Amino acid sequence: MNKKIVVIGGGTGTFTVLSGLKKYPLELSAVVSMADDGGSTGILRDELGVLPPGDIRQCLVALSTSDLLMRKLMNYRFSRGGLKGHTFGNILLSTLQKITENFDEAIEKLSEVLRLRGQVIPATLNKVRLVALLSDGTLLRGQSLIYTSNLEKLKKISLTPRATANPKALRAIRESDLIIIGPGDLYSSLIPNFLISGISRTIKQSPGKKVYICNLMNRGGQTDHFTVDDYVRKIEKYLGGKLDYVIYNNEHPSPKLLRKYMREGEHLVPSVHPAHAENKRFIGDNLLGRQFLKTQKGDFIKRNLIRHNPDRLANLIVKKILTGTF
Amino acid sequence: MNKKIVVIGGGTGTFTVLSGLKKYPLELSAVVSMADDGGSTGILRDELGVLPPGDIRQCLVALSTSDLLMRKLMNYRFSRGGLKGHTFGNILLSTLQKITENFDEAIEKLSEVLRLRGQVIPATLNKVRLVALLSDGTLLRGQSLIYTSNLEKLKKISLTPRATANPKALRAIRESDLIIIGPGDLYSSLIPNFLISGISRTIKQSPGKKVYICNLMNRGGQTDHFTVDDYVRKIEKYLGGKLDYVIYNNEHPSPKLLRKYMREGEHLVPSVHPAHAENKRFIGDNLLGRQFLKTQKGDFIKRNLIRHNPDRLANLIVKKILTGTF
Repeated sequence: MNKKIVVIGGGTGTFTVLSGLKKYPLELSAVVSMADDGGSTGILRDELGVLPPGDIRQCLVALSTSDLLMRKLMNYRFSRGGLKGHTFGNILLSTLQKITENFDEAIEKLSEVLRLRGQVIPATLNKVRLVALLSDGTLLRGQSLIYTSNLEKLKKISLTPRATANPKALRAIRESDLIIIGPGDLYSSLIPNFLISGISRTIKQSPGKKVYICNLMNRGGQTDHFTVDDYVRKIEKYLGGKLDYVIYNNEHPSPKLLRKYMREGEHLVPSVHPAHAENKRFIGDNLLGRQFLKTQKGDFIKRNLIRHNPDRLANLIVKKILTGTF
Repeated sequence: MNKKIVVIGGGTGTFTVLSGLKKYPLELSAVVSMADDGGSTGILRDELGVLPPGDIRQCLVALSTSDLLMRKLMNYRFSRGGLKGHTFGNILLSTLQKITENFDEAIEKLSEVLRLRGQVIPATLNKVRLVALLSDGTLLRGQSLIYTSNLEKLKKISLTPRATANPKALRAIRESDLIIIGPGDLYSSLIPNFLISGISRTIKQSPGKKVYICNLMNRGGQTDHFTVDDYVRKIEKYLGGKLDYVIYNNEHPSPKLLRKYMREGEHLVPSVHPAHAENKRFIGDNLLGRQFLKTQKGDFIKRNLIRHNPDRLANLIVKKILTGTF
């Protein structure tokens, strides 16, 4: 029987991991945070009252085995007129929600058409917003605002209203041999999952090995000067339990790209100290992917250009962790 | 081998005929006028520079054998926000065009997903506008303007730029046992097909029997006081040849609905004179369908509420004309 892997996150990082793992004979599930409210997704949430489609769409595309046209269709972004900024896939997922009134059903329907290798699961079916309380009393409402804010004085981050986990997400976590967290923005993509009632507890109780894939870049005003250890401490705090493996990157991006990031206050996460690296749970490798210098026309959101290499990441997960452990 | 039928038109009338015929073992093709530029279709044409999706969508839905959800999805109309007035299917067809740069290919792709019983063919792949010249020199540009204008002084109606027929449409016409024209708005849905170079000539030369399904209502300022004969004369003029059969309605709609239409200057097309009805090519029957009093929320366009009954129409076509003739 194929091994089961669940990837927890949302956003580009999860897309990358899934794209790589899809090439192996595995049973894949993606559990996706439902706190996103920026860009096309935010507009559709506001105007149509739907659950956020953007991250779900990315995961569907990652796991799709249908032809290129279908995947291009899902990611097509309008650059003109009243549809400007929207991706077609977001509109499709929103419309399916309006018709079915059930996001799980909408996703399953679309999964058939996209011939999915695996399943994509909303972490919660509750309509939630991410809220951050700073120590000076400032309240930041919404993931897209939090994503671009300085969180040095962060006191508490939570979901409002309180969210309960999608039973399908809990089942996937419970039955997985490997539970992969990240890579993904700490406060915007990863932590929102742990804030959903039932997710952390189920991860802890699952017999599956817990793997964290550390980010490549530190975010200005949010994770300044973070080391891999700092990320691990944060994740373990919100998870309320220990990680079994931590994957980190050893490779340097091009100076040109790094300078571009530095102008935005973002820096490379430093590699792990050699003494630390001997700790068997830390696994470092050259993990950088193809480097992009441009963003998509019409996109409302500035996206990361330094990304993981999906194939190397998947190879490391399958060969070093999955095969080595079980 | 199944008999081949091609239905020429666009709009609700064609949808009705196809919906009925789909239940019989036939090889169906729909040839759809590409002059539409109103409502959601018009906005998408203007903003994205695509060929008009609306009538194609209606025909796809008519011939689809996929589940109800898929058909609901195609016809879902947004009633709020930036997407207001658009149907999902129109957005889908527009996006597929942007990706494939080939409307025929876009339709074929979608036909697979919708499990089409038959094929839907744009009459032309040229981007055209309908233009009407009145005898006082007024030039009316665009099908949606012409649709709502008084055409008593119509001197000439044409397409600009000049359009050539889609070879696929000509092949369907050439190979069909039955060529059905209408029902449909005379100037907005039917005549635009005959203005495309190659369509009329191919209809005339095809061995298939030519059948015209006459409208139920006369349009104020356009076909006032038209009898079935008047419609036939107009169609034969633009077609440049004789029709083999004319189907007309004998049934009366509810007085309430008729009053509603009269307020808009629209009246029932009078039934055929008994002497005339003995002419074997005139076939009358009770052909009214379920009567609607409401239009869809968010729709930009006022649509007909008095419609043909798809099952009776199909039954008449198959039992009286197709079986009786061949």
